[in-house]
Amino acid sequence: MKNYTKTSIGNEGRVELHDALGLTGAEVSINALPAGAGVPFVHSHKENEEIYGILSGHGKAIIDGEEIALAAGDWLRIAPATKRQFFAANDAGIVYVCVQVKANSLGGFTAEDAVVY
Amino acid sequence: MKNYTKTSIGNEGRVELHDALGLTGAEVSINALPAGAGVPFVHSHKENEEIYGILSGHGKAIIDGEEIALAAGDWLRIAPATKRQFFAANDAGIVYVCVQVKANSLGGFTAEDAVVY
Repeated sequence: MKNYTKTSIGNEGRVELHDALGLTGAEVSINALPAGAGVPFVHSHKENEEIYGILSGHGKAIIDGEEIALAAGDWLRIAPATKRQFFAANDAGIVYVCVQVKANSLGGFTAEDAVVY
Repeated sequence: MKNYTKTSIGNEGRVELHDALGLTGAEVSINALPAGAGVPFVHSHKENEEIYGILSGHGKAIIDGEEIALAAGDWLRIAPATKRQFFAANDAGIVYVCVQVKANSLGGFTAEDAVVY
């Protein structure tokens, strides 16, 4: 497998990086919802934890029926079985990254996994 | 385990989310390097794939000795054993997210792993 892969994204509504980059440990998507829009369905996962980071704008998520205000700089972990749905605000769009990983898959990380030269 | 966790980040130089959010499948860090600065060491990983996304500014990475220009919107996968080092430009800072996951840990994802209501 190549030592690295690179892609560049623009203003697409949704970009999925798994296939574009040849990811093997995650799917990463970058998602833009215009003002007043929302993901049109509620979903959960069987095996995968999701990590959401709000990159710009604001909006809300409904998580197991609880409404949570979201703005740039907010990051969330959502457990697999949790029901989730994301929305832009009525007066502003929202751009967020979603990282999908298998729950409990990480072993050592950072200092424990790194080799420093 | 809680159905969700949330944190908010500001202008810290480096924020690590694993412990803050209780992540189980990834470590996620948000890193800001001011103009002229760089990570002061080269590193690789034993088991973990890294995914980098440039959120703002520009700079470069040196990956196995190859210099790669980086700007907002660029995303990279870097294989575990690959040697990497990141730098801001001399005239601009750079902010990037780094996602660390165990290589080959992802099973089904998106449509295959989702439950839609």
